[in-house]
This record gives sequence, structure tokens and C-alpha cells, in this order.
Amino acid sequence: MKISHIEHIGIAVKSIEDSLPYYEKLLGLKCYNIETVEDQKVRTAFLKVGDVKLELLEPTSPDSSIAKFIEKHGEGMHHLAYCVEDGVVNALDEAEQAGIQLIDKAPRAGAEHLHIAFLHPKTTKGILTELCEH
Amino acid sequence: MKISHIEHIGIAVKSIEDSLPYYEKLLGLKCYNIETVEDQKVRTAFLKVGDVKLELLEPTSPDSSIAKFIEKHGEGMHHLAYCVEDGVVNALDEAEQAGIQLIDKAPRAGAEHLHIAFLHPKTTKGILTELCEH
Repeated sequence: MKISHIEHIGIAVKSIEDSLPYYEKLLGLKCYNIETVEDQKVRTAFLKVGDVKLELLEPTSPDSSIAKFIEKHGEGMHHLAYCVEDGVVNALDEAEQAGIQLIDKAPRAGAEHLHIAFLHPKTTKGILTELCEH
Repeated sequence: MKISHIEHIGIAVKSIEDSLPYYEKLLGLKCYNIETVEDQKVRTAFLKVGDVKLELLEPTSPDSSIAKFIEKHGEGMHHLAYCVEDGVVNALDEAEQAGIQLIDKAPRAGAEHLHIAFLHPKTTKGILTELCEH
């Protein structure tokens, strides 16, 4: 797999409005975009730090996977997304051949016009892992 | 606070040896350094992805905080470290004034010759947060 950089770190939060003052006023980062991903039942806020984004994920419904994550673990880091240079399809092939459990068998549309696919944390050393391409 | 970039993502693992094949052979990253931080009771392996490091943390003793983390949560993302441009002392001052609970009241020596200090996750939206300077 050819990874160029970490695309983003997904962070589960109860409320984007309640979280932004910590990231913007204290850490001095800037939120440049907020969008809703309907099929994931989340609102996402994006902040840039160096060449990485922080993606704050707020559930829009109690049956959102982010709502369930917060219920179980509290707020915190939820997933880690890598930008793959050789495409998500190739990366998924490689991952499957290496015995990784694929959550998505094929890329799908994510926030910020990315093509994305998730790998199961049981087979990725405990980290819900996302592969992305622009 | 002036943050230039994410210095590293700390990842708790049971065994560096068992984890490296996933990061090196599948993800194609390269481990460039392994060192032991005695007072933290961890062995750490460093890999670079873009301008960010992944820091794999393996407990060297059952009473290491990393061993306790793994016992409670399993392997996974443990902390997020930001590089501060205006120094850790200034950053700690600002954090304290903003009501953040400091784990370290003053910077101390970390791996890779960094000066570091931790902020308590209860007051940082659920993420154990490290501030670093070179």
C-alpha cells in the first residue's frame, strides 16, 4: 500500500458547538467546513493541523454509530484515515489478501468528496481504519 | 496556543514485534527508531506518515499506564500529541487559564528528545493530549 499522509483523525463528540471552543480558542485551530453525511447520521466539522485534518463527528440520531461509540467509550478518537496514492480499490485488494477484515468491500462516497472504505479494528491492531482517495 | 502540526499519534499495542508487520508490510510505513522510556515503562517504535509520527507504545511492566489502558480498552489510539511553536510552558499556562486540568504542571523529558506535558482527557473532549517542543 502506498500511503502519502494521514488524511484525518475522526473524533467522536457529543456536540460540535460545545467542542469547537476548545479546538479554536485554546488550540488555535480553525474550523473551515461543517457538513452533514446523511447516510452516516453524523454532522462533521473539519479543522486543519499541518497536513492532517481533525474531523469532529457529532451524531444526528441516537442510532448513529457515533452515538453508540460515545455511549460505550465516551467522547474521543474514533478512527484514523490514511490517504492512499494507489487508489482505494487496490488498497482493499491488498488488505483482503493480508487477512484484514473489510467493512466496505468497495469504495463509497465520504465527506469532502473523498472515496473511502473502512477496515475492521479487530484486524488492524485495534484501530478503526479508513482508506481515502480524492 | 500556536500549534504547527501533529507531532505524533500514540498507539497502545501489546507487542511491537506483532504490530510492525501490519504497519510495515501492509501499510508500507517504515519503523525508523525503537527506544525504551524507563520512567513511563514503555518501549516505543516510531514510524513516519507525512509530517506525523505514529508512536507504538508497548508496556514493559504490568503496572505501566499502557498496560492498564490495554486491559481496559484493548489496543488502539491512546493519545494525540501536538507540536507547539510558542513552547510548552506558555501552552500549559494558557491551558490552565482556560480551565484545562494539567497532568504535568511543567514540561518533562519524553522520547525522541522532546519536552512534553500531558493534559487530562476529562477536560480535552475525551482525548489524552500531549504538548511537545523540540
